[in-house]
Amino acid sequence: MAIVIIRQDSKIELWKNALQKADSSLKVYSYLEDHPKDEITMAVIWKHPAGSLAVYPNLKCIASAGAGVDYIFEDNTRPKNIPITRIVDPFLAGDMSEHVLAVIFAHLKNLNAYKLDQVANVWEPKDYLRIKDVTVGILGLGELGSLTATDLSKYGFNVQGWSRSKKNIDGVQTFFGEDQQQNFLGSTDVLVCLLPLTPATQGILNTSLMSQLPKNAYVINVARGGHLVDEDLLELLDSGHLSGACLDVYHTEPLPTTHPFWNHKKVHMTPHYASVSDTNSVMPQIVDNYKRLISGKKLLHLVDSDKGY
Amino acid sequence: MAIVIIRQDSKIELWKNALQKADSSLKVYSYLEDHPKDEITMAVIWKHPAGSLAVYPNLKCIASAGAGVDYIFEDNTRPKNIPITRIVDPFLAGDMSEHVLAVIFAHLKNLNAYKLDQVANVWEPKDYLRIKDVTVGILGLGELGSLTATDLSKYGFNVQGWSRSKKNIDGVQTFFGEDQQQNFLGSTDVLVCLLPLTPATQGILNTSLMSQLPKNAYVINVARGGHLVDEDLLELLDSGHLSGACLDVYHTEPLPTTHPFWNHKKVHMTPHYASVSDTNSVMPQIVDNYKRLISGKKLLHLVDSDKGY
Repeated sequence: MAIVIIRQDSKIELWKNALQKADSSLKVYSYLEDHPKDEITMAVIWKHPAGSLAVYPNLKCIASAGAGVDYIFEDNTRPKNIPITRIVDPFLAGDMSEHVLAVIFAHLKNLNAYKLDQVANVWEPKDYLRIKDVTVGILGLGELGSLTATDLSKYGFNVQGWSRSKKNIDGVQTFFGEDQQQNFLGSTDVLVCLLPLTPATQGILNTSLMSQLPKNAYVINVARGGHLVDEDLLELLDSGHLSGACLDVYHTEPLPTTHPFWNHKKVHMTPHYASVSDTNSVMPQIVDNYKRLISGKKLLHLVDSDKGY
Repeated sequence: MAIVIIRQDSKIELWKNALQKADSSLKVYSYLEDHPKDEITMAVIWKHPAGSLAVYPNLKCIASAGAGVDYIFEDNTRPKNIPITRIVDPFLAGDMSEHVLAVIFAHLKNLNAYKLDQVANVWEPKDYLRIKDVTVGILGLGELGSLTATDLSKYGFNVQGWSRSKKNIDGVQTFFGEDQQQNFLGSTDVLVCLLPLTPATQGILNTSLMSQLPKNAYVINVARGGHLVDEDLLELLDSGHLSGACLDVYHTEPLPTTHPFWNHKKVHMTPHYASVSDTNSVMPQIVDNYKRLISGKKLLHLVDSDKGY
């Protein structure tokens, strides 16, 4: 029994070493090295090459190395009848919450506009907003959305949240289901998308949804590029309905330099770095799940294949 | 008895109307219109022209229209034996605290660097810091400094503060006096200057002080341009001792476009807009003080002329 690590970035060795440091008895391989395919029981993966999971006849579990699993469902050659797990990491959620706070504060205080002014040698004071002036609406109240909503509420923001099914969060007004979406959107000044990417949420940030926000609303997408219809956002920014947007995720990453987001004054870009798995902090739950797998116990952080998250 | 408003920006009419709205029985003049000089009892001023206070023989009080009063002491022709008052406004302190939070979060999450990257069409993820990674040190624990320290502590930051005399603030480690300044600086990752500008604090942000901060420290000046020795900051940024600085105040405002701050990648500028007196929120305390002045009662928010704040 052994673990294989499959990812296309430069972090394979980092993960291999961290797993072996967490438990030196583990057999861990990179998918790029020679390794006995039939020994592999668990694949720890992040944005694997399509087809790379199909070569392991005895694979019993696919473990996503991040909170997202959408890329797994996009690979139709994946083994379909084995459990998928994902990372639920307090650091991941905390980092996301701090990123969203940073982005909202920069919006209140015009920091991106001032940076552009500085580049252009322009001194132009602008009115600022206060915490109490805005209602933040969180779209998606999973691990990340709930913590972000709770933190924003602690810091004095008016916070509301929308999710598919009913959720209760202290200090946060919650809406659920399609019926309540219009009320949620109509009273949201800053919309934060933290939904999982599924067939049901693909392209959800479109003209129909975003035009229900009040005039001058601000949109933050820290979930997945696939949630956003880029052209619809650009139209609503240019028509003046939305005052700005901050994006961390894109349909293609890195975003091609010809994409209109790069040069748009109302679009503020970060390079998919809102929240990055901390190798040391997530290793124990992967080792734990591997041991549960071997001993036939229930796995932690299982993904519901029907819902897609 | 009457009030004169003296300021060189475009807000004289705004202030005149707001004062008369707060109490319609008041006689209020702009210093630019014809007005009976000997009737003037109180001057409500902001960065007045030097000499403009000397023409009122019966002036009994100089009321600064903001929290700062340093510009009054710079005018040697001012009447010297009458009380000076300043604004103590919960909005001013709250706005300052939110500005400092915004600037610190932007630092943790590299938002200014990402904005410059976007302008340059560069996709380059950078490591971020967490709230728990930094100790914020507040230099100056007056109205603004104390509230900012308290708020930062509420958000989970490690916060410490330094002031001339001993202060106690819940959740904040406080240092005082010259003896304890070195210990304070040596453990401060993000230094926030919120001191009053006095002869004792002029140029306090110099090489001697800032080089006591740990390597990669970040400096935020939201007090007065006169606190900072510009050349010293530039040297410490270029030598790599400091990782960056965010400035809201300058020796000359607007900052001349030839100043090296404009084009420095590690200097982040905002145009003296961290915290701006809200006319409606400060009017009651000015009216109150005017009535106290007429009836011989003790004035609120008196400035100590010896200390200069």
